[in-house]
Amino acid sequence: MTDRIAALVNGETLDVLPVSDRGLLYGDGVFETIAIREGRPEHWPRHMTRLQAGCARLGLPPPDSARLATEAGAVIDQIDKGVLKLIITRGTGGRGYRVPKAAACTRIVQVHPWPDYPAACAEQGVKTRLCATRLGRNPALAGIKHLNRLEQVLARQEWNDADIHEGLVTDTDGNLVEGTMSNVFIVDDGALLTPDLSHAGVAGIMRTIILEQAERLGLRVRIAHIDTQTLLQAGEVFLSNSLIGIWPVVAIDGTSCRIGNITLQLQELLHDSSDLDAGWRE
Amino acid sequence: MTDRIAALVNGETLDVLPVSDRGLLYGDGVFETIAIREGRPEHWPRHMTRLQAGCARLGLPPPDSARLATEAGAVIDQIDKGVLKLIITRGTGGRGYRVPKAAACTRIVQVHPWPDYPAACAEQGVKTRLCATRLGRNPALAGIKHLNRLEQVLARQEWNDADIHEGLVTDTDGNLVEGTMSNVFIVDDGALLTPDLSHAGVAGIMRTIILEQAERLGLRVRIAHIDTQTLLQAGEVFLSNSLIGIWPVVAIDGTSCRIGNITLQLQELLHDSSDLDAGWRE
Repeated sequence: MTDRIAALVNGETLDVLPVSDRGLLYGDGVFETIAIREGRPEHWPRHMTRLQAGCARLGLPPPDSARLATEAGAVIDQIDKGVLKLIITRGTGGRGYRVPKAAACTRIVQVHPWPDYPAACAEQGVKTRLCATRLGRNPALAGIKHLNRLEQVLARQEWNDADIHEGLVTDTDGNLVEGTMSNVFIVDDGALLTPDLSHAGVAGIMRTIILEQAERLGLRVRIAHIDTQTLLQAGEVFLSNSLIGIWPVVAIDGTSCRIGNITLQLQELLHDSSDLDAGWRE
Repeated sequence: MTDRIAALVNGETLDVLPVSDRGLLYGDGVFETIAIREGRPEHWPRHMTRLQAGCARLGLPPPDSARLATEAGAVIDQIDKGVLKLIITRGTGGRGYRVPKAAACTRIVQVHPWPDYPAACAEQGVKTRLCATRLGRNPALAGIKHLNRLEQVLARQEWNDADIHEGLVTDTDGNLVEGTMSNVFIVDDGALLTPDLSHAGVAGIMRTIILEQAERLGLRVRIAHIDTQTLLQAGEVFLSNSLIGIWPVVAIDGTSCRIGNITLQLQELLHDSSDLDAGWRE
């Protein structure tokens, strides 16, 4: 990966923004991380829906999806595979938490290189660790992909071992929430479980897709409170996000896990997924 | 207030920063808000100490206080009264929470106009409200002045009544923590109480100064868990921060409070405070 990125800020080719932007001052905004495959942003309508929901939660005006699509199209031109990042902030304003009356949001559309994850992560599974960093519980911010991400930064700082691909994070009550950059699923007694995110965590687009596909497969699916004991005894554990799809987990600290049939079935369904570009610029 | 600010970014006269800065992407950084009075930043050594502590907590390299002082001096040149804002972020890096190996922090030194608070706030007290927005509890981030401030933005969004000058905020367990932009003190049975901030909140410089002065006055002082019942029944309530000093509270929603002697004594001590510029550029 390099730091070089193509970016549009409010439609202009720019790679800077004002130091008075509330995105910097307070993390006052939301973002989306979208896979670009075959030159198209994957699951665009779902990302737009989540972006709108996040803006609504923060009291930001609804972003113009058509304009974002036009700008995304311009930025990903000629790019076959990469990562599209959209950021919406509350824009510039005076000092102080109070939202300025005439706030005009800042929208940033960036392309980043595809991350260099080894193919083995999806095929042979990944080792993980349980992070000591806990997530605070706050229903007002839970679920949305906002710009206040210090907890994830602190959790990701806990290890440097290149052999560990993800850290699993619990909240301050001890409930499993997610990975630092992924959602987490476990298979327990034949049912697919994933943590309830009403108090902490980001509700990933891939998480929703997996839940839908699991129901199509006829699996029992539960959004649940999962403690670490249940996690460590689970029959299968896997991670998901928009870039990695599904990574099976083969170890959590010293505890080994096996790659199970439900994980493999869901992985296969994702590969065959046909809604790659449904709704993109229609 | 206007949006026009004088700013240095990494020592250069700039009012922009790269869109790849982790301060924007994750709120990965800390800040200080410092009163400029008589052309000097007030309580500079204390602000430097807190800034260093915040950086240490986030795993940021310690900022160079002497260089910050030089840059602050350049930015506040010719300014008698104003607000100095310092921001330290983890700088630019690739996409992803992982901290880049060779991260060079971004330092931003800005001057803002003095806020137009009416003199009546300090003299006749302010009306406040109890906010519905709760603060998540997380010891890893509590106390420091980091850039993840969405909770404060949401709380401040709850009211537009110009007659209400501050909102008081509790954590998800119902403990009083602070105001959206201030610390809070109550006088209860002759003792001075202020909320314990080990799970949420920002430990203000003015809060520390007030606690020290209260001890000099011979007051009983307690860092305590304070529920809203105790708050609403308190003999005196007041707010503090580096810009406002002390504001007595005369109302919390429908509950009236009186301006008491301890509040007035502490206010007077602050006015007489002689360490305005102790340590500044020595």
